[in-house]
Amino acid sequence: MHFASDNTSPVPPQILDALIAANHGYAMPYGADAIMAEVRTAIRETFEAPEAEVYLVATGTAANALSLALLCPPWATVFCHRNAHIEEDECGAPEFYTGGAKLTLVEGADAKLTPEALREAIGFAARGGVHNVQRGAVSITNATEHGTVYSAAEVSALSAVAADYDLPVHMDGARFANALVATGATPAEMTWKAGIDVLSFGGTKNGCMGVEAVVLFDPAHAWEFELRRKRGGHLFSKHRYLSAQMAAYLKDGLWLKLAARANDAAARLSQGLAALDRAELLHPTEANAVFAAFPREAHRRAQAAGAQYYLWPMDQSLEGPGDVPLSARMVCSWCTTDEEVDALLAIVRGD
Amino acid sequence: MHFASDNTSPVPPQILDALIAANHGYAMPYGADAIMAEVRTAIRETFEAPEAEVYLVATGTAANALSLALLCPPWATVFCHRNAHIEEDECGAPEFYTGGAKLTLVEGADAKLTPEALREAIGFAARGGVHNVQRGAVSITNATEHGTVYSAAEVSALSAVAADYDLPVHMDGARFANALVATGATPAEMTWKAGIDVLSFGGTKNGCMGVEAVVLFDPAHAWEFELRRKRGGHLFSKHRYLSAQMAAYLKDGLWLKLAARANDAAARLSQGLAALDRAELLHPTEANAVFAAFPREAHRRAQAAGAQYYLWPMDQSLEGPGDVPLSARMVCSWCTTDEEVDALLAIVRGD
Amino acid sequence: MHFASDNTSPVPPQILDALIAANHGYAMPYGADAIMAEVRTAIRETFEAPEAEVYLVATGTAANALSLALLCPPWATVFCHRNAHIEEDECGAPEFYTGGAKLTLVEGADAKLTPEALREAIGFAARGGVHNVQRGAVSITNATEHGTVYSAAEVSALSAVAADYDLPVHMDGARFANALVATGATPAEMTWKAGIDVLSFGGTKNGCMGVEAVVLFDPAHAWEFELRRKRGGHLFSKHRYLSAQMAAYLKDGLWLKLAARANDAAARLSQGLAALDRAELLHPTEANAVFAAFPREAHRRAQAAGAQYYLWPMDQSLEGPGDVPLSARMVCSWCTTDEEVDALLAIVRGD
Amino acid sequence: MHFASDNTSPVPPQILDALIAANHGYAMPYGADAIMAEVRTAIRETFEAPEAEVYLVATGTAANALSLALLCPPWATVFCHRNAHIEEDECGAPEFYTGGAKLTLVEGADAKLTPEALREAIGFAARGGVHNVQRGAVSITNATEHGTVYSAAEVSALSAVAADYDLPVHMDGARFANALVATGATPAEMTWKAGIDVLSFGGTKNGCMGVEAVVLFDPAHAWEFELRRKRGGHLFSKHRYLSAQMAAYLKDGLWLKLAARANDAAARLSQGLAALDRAELLHPTEANAVFAAFPREAHRRAQAAGAQYYLWPMDQSLEGPGDVPLSARMVCSWCTTDEEVDALLAIVRGD
Repeated sequence: MHFASDNTSPVPPQILDALIAANHGYAMPYGADAIMAEVRTAIRETFEAPEAEVYLVATGTAANALSLALLCPPWATVFCHRNAHIEEDECGAPEFYTGGAKLTLVEGADAKLTPEALREAIGFAARGGVHNVQRGAVSITNATEHGTVYSAAEVSALSAVAADYDLPVHMDGARFANALVATGATPAEMTWKAGIDVLSFGGTKNGCMGVEAVVLFDPAHAWEFELRRKRGGHLFSKHRYLSAQMAAYLKDGLWLKLAARANDAAARLSQGLAALDRAELLHPTEANAVFAAFPREAHRRAQAAGAQYYLWPMDQSLEGPGDVPLSARMVCSWCTTDEEVDALLAIVRGD
Repeated sequence: MHFASDNTSPVPPQILDALIAANHGYAMPYGADAIMAEVRTAIRETFEAPEAEVYLVATGTAANALSLALLCPPWATVFCHRNAHIEEDECGAPEFYTGGAKLTLVEGADAKLTPEALREAIGFAARGGVHNVQRGAVSITNATEHGTVYSAAEVSALSAVAADYDLPVHMDGARFANALVATGATPAEMTWKAGIDVLSFGGTKNGCMGVEAVVLFDPAHAWEFELRRKRGGHLFSKHRYLSAQMAAYLKDGLWLKLAARANDAAARLSQGLAALDRAELLHPTEANAVFAAFPREAHRRAQAAGAQYYLWPMDQSLEGPGDVPLSARMVCSWCTTDEEVDALLAIVRGD
Repeated sequence: MHFASDNTSPVPPQILDALIAANHGYAMPYGADAIMAEVRTAIRETFEAPEAEVYLVATGTAANALSLALLCPPWATVFCHRNAHIEEDECGAPEFYTGGAKLTLVEGADAKLTPEALREAIGFAARGGVHNVQRGAVSITNATEHGTVYSAAEVSALSAVAADYDLPVHMDGARFANALVATGATPAEMTWKAGIDVLSFGGTKNGCMGVEAVVLFDPAHAWEFELRRKRGGHLFSKHRYLSAQMAAYLKDGLWLKLAARANDAAARLSQGLAALDRAELLHPTEANAVFAAFPREAHRRAQAAGAQYYLWPMDQSLEGPGDVPLSARMVCSWCTTDEEVDALLAIVRGD
Repeated sequence: MHFASDNTSPVPPQILDALIAANHGYAMPYGADAIMAEVRTAIRETFEAPEAEVYLVATGTAANALSLALLCPPWATVFCHRNAHIEEDECGAPEFYTGGAKLTLVEGADAKLTPEALREAIGFAARGGVHNVQRGAVSITNATEHGTVYSAAEVSALSAVAADYDLPVHMDGARFANALVATGATPAEMTWKAGIDVLSFGGTKNGCMGVEAVVLFDPAHAWEFELRRKRGGHLFSKHRYLSAQMAAYLKDGLWLKLAARANDAAARLSQGLAALDRAELLHPTEANAVFAAFPREAHRRAQAAGAQYYLWPMDQSLEGPGDVPLSARMVCSWCTTDEEVDALLAIVRGD
């Protein structure tokens, strides 16, 4: 019963096999390996974007921070949701990589931006000429940090607001596959057709050891990206091992299958909880994370049984009256089984 | 009728005379001038702080950004009011000088922090260990951007919250003299006795050409400050001309007299407006700025008569129905006369 | 006998009078003052550059660092002489403002770059693709830190090398007037006609209290410059006092007269020393600084008589055998008199 | 015949097996995995440093830049050899991570610093007080970029110079194992016993997929390091896969065996070339890289036969008279065979 995060999972055999297969003979370093050429082609085909440039890094924070640095100058601000990963979980990496840009935090239910709130935030910013930081970029997290997703149409609506101000749009797709599976959109529909300029295309949370692709739909600043990546220490010498993971991840739709499993497990857990009187869903379960409140005594039982997940927010205590509801985040991954889900549900129910 | 800002005023004769007097013979550069020694002594005496280190710069943004860089590491956040100058009017200088720290924006009426809101913001930050930016420093603006002031007791209450988290406290005192005059506190009571570690002590808005003192009540990091100042391009070679302004500003309480005049003018304007049915004060007038709403037609008359002030927020239009109230910011300075105030009041009244 | 630096001098009456004249009534802040419009026009006319954009800051370090930040991205390098002010005397301000660019130090006699050495340095840099910092910009100091000057033809030759690599060229003209007077070139000939893109046009060392103009001969990135200036804390609210200095400095050729006096004094000192058996010039005296070696006992006499200048390098000791030559830097300014020069010469001669 | 770099090699089976073994079940992320505890213990034992803190990153550039950022403030300079990797091959990562510190380049034969040259460089720096960047740290590369090594005694002598100025010392040990094998020193003798404060302990070039350990012999600033690592995007969520590599690398002395093989291959190649009249060694071959010059026609034959290595410097041409010597860098790795070496030697000899 491990629902702490999708990053606690192992990797599926296809990823491991790819590493083993890649481990023969010499290979040119720093992205000049032959497998990277395959990856580039696969991403372009997957996204119907023959001009796109593709770069691999090993962490989502690197992918996001480098992408934002490309889009937003130091004297500008990135518009994002208050609960975006770039705000809450990257220890200021966007500020570091951009050279001190701001993040302007926009409110919205279920960790989602609305076009209205985004427009208001953009309109308000930079009203003071040289005295304010300037409007820089918009960043959209899909799937969101609260387990919800934007449809392609919703992304388009946000990009349209950005376009009114000539702002580029970044998508933090650490859980991009989960969002695609949830919405049924194609990769192209969810990204460049919806106005996305740069995508952080996640691999790690969805089954890889550690690889993310940055996809530049407009290759104009590709060389700058390469320099920023190197300067950030994110250019791998034995790059083939990043390439191999990503190639296997993309092959035969593995990435979508992995995400479908995670989403299905989350749906099962969510539905199971929703059926209980004493449990309450805090956000719609649209991807692979479930946010729900249920009685403290059920949390104590779960913990005693070895279930792993986070109380969310984390500063809630298991000590105290047993009938008080505590809220929790439970994340499913490609390897979450129905048995694990059912076991947790049984504990919450008090079977 | 010039109420656009206190920074549109000329300087009083004492400041100019000091420059003239300083302009004789050679003087050692970079702060080694004899007048700087006088300034250091005067500040220490004024603040009853014999250990304090004192440095001059020429802009308030430099004073604030350098101070914050000293107090807040790049991976941390500065807690400040949403309407603080460091957030709204410095084009990201704090982010630049700190190396990419965040500003965490705290809400509060009349541009003032409350201990409760500050505590909540600090408590919420850094809850995620290494994943979040850390708690860095607190910055208090006194007088505030909305023309209100903190009493020394209020500052102490905020510093006590900071102390609970071992955070240093900065005061943006671009209008420090106005706050002192308004509250009757002594310089020491308003600063180190109230828990302030570093003060941006403003001179420019209150009558100097361009000089601010940074007062480090704890001199432990003085050398680091000197290096940061130099590296920022804020160490003046012909430093005596900064020193001369500051020395004259402090001499015989000139700084307090200038602020008293500005505050008095604002009080007169505020009282005059408050007496009108059709005008409404938007914030208490405690220092030298008046925020009020009155009918659009009065604004049109004022503009036609050459009165200068800003509609606040700036995106309101003078076009439209005359009876609709528009809000405005009117700032008084050391050289605002009662005649100017009365003339503006007459226009608003429609005399 | 004050030869420590040209920045220890007072300002001439014209500068002070301009400040007095500017100190009437209200003036729009942040560069919107009426005098700034005059300055802009005067600079454009002086440089025969009607398209140029002009910005004022208060220190040479700010002018240089902001200029370089405009020209050189963080992942590139600035080619400059090993003895350039930007390398030796700005505590890393260029690195700070550029966001971490390098300075590549080029050797050359008398603190001057040669086209050959510059070409070799540029050619060597960035040979390793993404692994190296890239070629960013060239910076030329004129007059140099060793009291020599580049002719307009020499500047052109250096710019031609830069142009071969598509690199922009910055001139650190903290002592630009001294270089012009020494060479007889026009401002245009020494700058944009010779390939200079951005000029730090010095005022402070040559008689102002604290003002430098940054001249962008290509205005394409002017707005970016304004944002960088603000963000660096270098945008003055009471800007008129910067404008007034610069306007007076330019008026009726004051700036050139001041520089001529400084150069003449240096020439007199240099010739006087050259005539002595026991003194040796270390660099040609072409502007307002004299570098010479003469016996330690003469330095001791000079010091006893109150003469001020720096042993150069500074780590030489006045203690020891009297006949050992020590080298010194002696800088003349607009207010250095022939009497001061002669008095120093008399001491060195041992009259 | 692949001598382009040690980073073109695959990984030995032990590393791959470790990844396979680690790929079971859930594991706590971000360094809280059980294998990391083993790694920490193994490093502490290997270095006889029970207090040391140990952190893993995936690239050598990250290890170096983060280490230097910990040791050197933005307003200071790192003293290193002109040919250090941090200067020549990291695209300014040290400048980026330190926030704009300088690198002061020290000359020395065979890419090695001498105590005399280091002392002169340190002594010269920071002579100008606040005007210069300050003395920050010393960085020593061992093995060097030219295939030479420092003995533990040589490292001690350099650290002693640093200690005279209270400077911390970093060792770039991307090829640390090669240096140890070459000198016979113990890990402790080569590092903290010789005055090293922070070590970049390389794994990637010597057989891992991508992992380096940063070893802080003084744990005082460990938390700061963690924040810097996270902020740089170098904290891995699925950290177990870094841990597993490093654990296998350290187990049973694998790391030393791999390095011994690389060094032996280089020695064989070096001796073979030295025996030829027409070849000349450019640096002593002490680790796993051979620098030698031999006739252009031999290079053409080698290339035709598919041998891979770099002409060094890279801008030499294979076109031209066949008897002209061209210089080359040939790097051996853990998987270089004697057959590969002998085949290359035969080509050079023209067998």
